[in-house]
Amino acid sequence: MPFTEIIMKPIGILHTQYRRVSDNIPIQGRLHPGAEGTIELFPEYRDACRDLEEFSHIFLLYHFHISGEERLITKPYMDTVPRGVFATRSPHRPNHIGLSLVRLVSIDQGILAVRDLDIVDGTPLLDIKPYIPRFDTISADEKVRIGWMENISNGTIERKTTRTRSHEEWLQESK
Amino acid sequence: MPFTEIIMKPIGILHTQYRRVSDNIPIQGRLHPGAEGTIELFPEYRDACRDLEEFSHIFLLYHFHISGEERLITKPYMDTVPRGVFATRSPHRPNHIGLSLVRLVSIDQGILAVRDLDIVDGTPLLDIKPYIPRFDTISADEKVRIGWMENISNGTIERKTTRTRSHEEWLQESK
Repeated sequence: MPFTEIIMKPIGILHTQYRRVSDNIPIQGRLHPGAEGTIELFPEYRDACRDLEEFSHIFLLYHFHISGEERLITKPYMDTVPRGVFATRSPHRPNHIGLSLVRLVSIDQGILAVRDLDIVDGTPLLDIKPYIPRFDTISADEKVRIGWMENISNGTIERKTTRTRSHEEWLQESK
Repeated sequence: MPFTEIIMKPIGILHTQYRRVSDNIPIQGRLHPGAEGTIELFPEYRDACRDLEEFSHIFLLYHFHISGEERLITKPYMDTVPRGVFATRSPHRPNHIGLSLVRLVSIDQGILAVRDLDIVDGTPLLDIKPYIPRFDTISADEKVRIGWMENISNGTIERKTTRTRSHEEWLQESK
């Protein structure tokens, strides 16, 4: 079973203002909202967007196509301590799938206008799922623990968008 | 680009009480919390779980391995009107990736005990990501619209776990 291959395929391409990974891409779109971009859905998938424009927010699942690396332990952007990769949102995962929650602005002939992007230009899209708070969030009466992120945030993570070091440094130490 | 293949691989297997897709699996784990199960991570990925036990909730990304179908329009479980598949959480997507938010109970030698499962036994796991509310939820002051789900819920969707029809009927009409 460990060696079974699962074949995925791009269903579209993301067009964003972040032409390169060094273009100061927000660590997460929600921490730094605003960045506009478009999703160019390949024509054969256009019909699958029916009813989607009535949702205000969507999850994008995409291929971290620039990362050719697979790490088990990695230093996150927001920390300098090595962490297990499943306890981070790093691109260097065993399966290079990214997950971002973005605002859906409009859909016109297979072009989706979106906001709050944290994704590099040219990224292949794998899936779109509607964001449904009852499915995708933990209600306020249930305690959420966020591990090492807790120490970083000190309650102000929503304002913290700074990396601990530049993308170039981060890349360098990853070798 | 549309024909580029992206190769993914299972990193573990989900063991749940739902042996078959007809075993009355909750439509979403959060609507029907409780179901316990385990994730058997393949030994080569155990180290990647370091630091993860300090997170209370995780996203599981997995392969909808039973669905061999790709539909653009589909009738969701909770509705009888055909919808664009990207406006649903149906398994019959162009890329068969599932996304579920579950409670993490413990990690012991590559076995993760989890709760609130809505996943069939034997499902191959693709990725684990920590749930971080600041990244993954929309704050209360931003309006969220949930399209056709709005009509279904009437404000009580958290109590609605009933399908509009049996799994068998749903499969039948899908042909």
